[in-house]
Amino acid sequence: MSENLKEALVPIKKEIDELEIMLFELIGSEVSFVRTVADYILKNGGKRLRPILTVICAKMAGCVDKSVYKMAACIEYIHTASLLHDDVIDNAMLRRGQPSTNAKWGNHISVLVGDFFYSRASQLMIDQKNLKILDVVAKSTTATTEGEIFEIMKSSDVTTTQEDYLKIIKNKTAHLFATACQIGGIMSGVSDYFEKSFQEYGLNLGMAFQLADDVLDYTSSEDVFGKTKGVDLREGKLTLPLIRSMGRANEEEVQILKNAIIAESLDQETFTQVKDLIIRYDGFKDTQELARDYIVRAKESLSPFRASLEKDILLSLADYVVHRER
Amino acid sequence: MSENLKEALVPIKKEIDELEIMLFELIGSEVSFVRTVADYILKNGGKRLRPILTVICAKMAGCVDKSVYKMAACIEYIHTASLLHDDVIDNAMLRRGQPSTNAKWGNHISVLVGDFFYSRASQLMIDQKNLKILDVVAKSTTATTEGEIFEIMKSSDVTTTQEDYLKIIKNKTAHLFATACQIGGIMSGVSDYFEKSFQEYGLNLGMAFQLADDVLDYTSSEDVFGKTKGVDLREGKLTLPLIRSMGRANEEEVQILKNAIIAESLDQETFTQVKDLIIRYDGFKDTQELARDYIVRAKESLSPFRASLEKDILLSLADYVVHRER
Repeated sequence: MSENLKEALVPIKKEIDELEIMLFELIGSEVSFVRTVADYILKNGGKRLRPILTVICAKMAGCVDKSVYKMAACIEYIHTASLLHDDVIDNAMLRRGQPSTNAKWGNHISVLVGDFFYSRASQLMIDQKNLKILDVVAKSTTATTEGEIFEIMKSSDVTTTQEDYLKIIKNKTAHLFATACQIGGIMSGVSDYFEKSFQEYGLNLGMAFQLADDVLDYTSSEDVFGKTKGVDLREGKLTLPLIRSMGRANEEEVQILKNAIIAESLDQETFTQVKDLIIRYDGFKDTQELARDYIVRAKESLSPFRASLEKDILLSLADYVVHRER
Repeated sequence: MSENLKEALVPIKKEIDELEIMLFELIGSEVSFVRTVADYILKNGGKRLRPILTVICAKMAGCVDKSVYKMAACIEYIHTASLLHDDVIDNAMLRRGQPSTNAKWGNHISVLVGDFFYSRASQLMIDQKNLKILDVVAKSTTATTEGEIFEIMKSSDVTTTQEDYLKIIKNKTAHLFATACQIGGIMSGVSDYFEKSFQEYGLNLGMAFQLADDVLDYTSSEDVFGKTKGVDLREGKLTLPLIRSMGRANEEEVQILKNAIIAESLDQETFTQVKDLIIRYDGFKDTQELARDYIVRAKESLSPFRASLEKDILLSLADYVVHRER
């Protein structure tokens, strides 16, 4: 966890510790191997950003009880499930700096343990007997899946527009951030107006998060980022830094970019060449700027709420998302 | 569809046609490619046994309205999702006699479209606002997943017992059959006693179905069965025909069986050798006998219900399950 994030979260350390315990407690399975894999994945960490958002929003709007942690855990399980299914998809060998589940146990287990995380989350939400939560979350998982499928369809498609890209990241990433915050509001029984504000905050934060992620995929140090660098390009994913640069590069340079996108393998030299072109044509700068725009909107979404410790944390989190190194 | 099955279902042809239409109508997606893949999978057919069970049980216990078809469609979508995830798992190249989705579009799409089918089913069930249905189905999908993971754990494990095997097939197959029937009862508002009877019928039918399937995996003609033959052995899956024979074969023969289980590839000669040993030691005969036992129990589960057209169909379906050739 980055020092900044850790610092920002100090005021709710007690809640975060409780969440961490609940994450391990609630996953329970009768099959011991499922337990082993689930523990491995959960221990592997991650920033827990999404469930923490649920907890903070709930706390900001009232109080945090056992059922809030449960719903927060559901959000993390759903996120974990989609990571597990992504690892199969991306054939990723590193996840959070550790061998990914599919590198360790194969595609079989990644898909099935992902399914297990999904159904565990469903069961916990059903036990909560709140149809609204079920509805909001189901819409979110549908959006994530549709976003990821649309992304694959657009893979290696050099005509991908900024609009396509924004639609993809809204569905595959931002929607779940929005849901995480919204659930916090629902659990505290806020009115529709405040619920909508939480949702807006999460959506904008999620957009900024993914934009920043897509820059980090090119620019980060692997040790810090915990993922293999250049994965997007290697998979023919056209993210905003590349889309922006494609529109500005000259014919010869566009050809270099196109070749890199469709090539079976990517050597260090080509990667550096592409990265340099993105820098030359402000691809990273523009993307970071857009991320900051979303952060401004995220912060504005919180304006209906009076000042509080929790509001301060949400504001700091917004800054963290665009300044993080991983 | 086998002639026998078709004949048995003639009295509810109207309902089956309606179900078929609903299956295509309800899947809807905003992403056109999802629609294309979903249509391909649904058109590829399959016997629709599970959703038909929901419809028959509902009809037997009262009436069939639009919402029964919706819930039946959910059962089929959940089954389809697990097939899609299985195809990734099994690396199957044939499904219902056609190229499987992952052979056609890759693992990426199989996993994600599977996820899409799951979330579509969840949304439809949530719209129904019946927490009991949600609960019953969530328990079922958890069981399926845990059963499949346990099966993978036991793969190539020559110490797998009949008890292990029965636990696997109960979870991975029979549970969803039970749920399909139970949902029919719940939709018609039957008392717990009748609901339980439907569930018992489905569970026993599902056990028999999988036992028969595991015999067919060795003995069927590929053209009729629509799946590649010998898949279980090739994947190191110890199904009952093999488990039974292992316990009776002599040391030298056990060695032949063990080698076939752990070998990377399986030639026709070895497959025939294994099949002959299973025949010699009554592996198929015993498995079929056990399947018939479950069918007897399935039929007995229906004894609380008075005679009806629908009851007759359920009784015929039970016979079909053990006598089918695919």
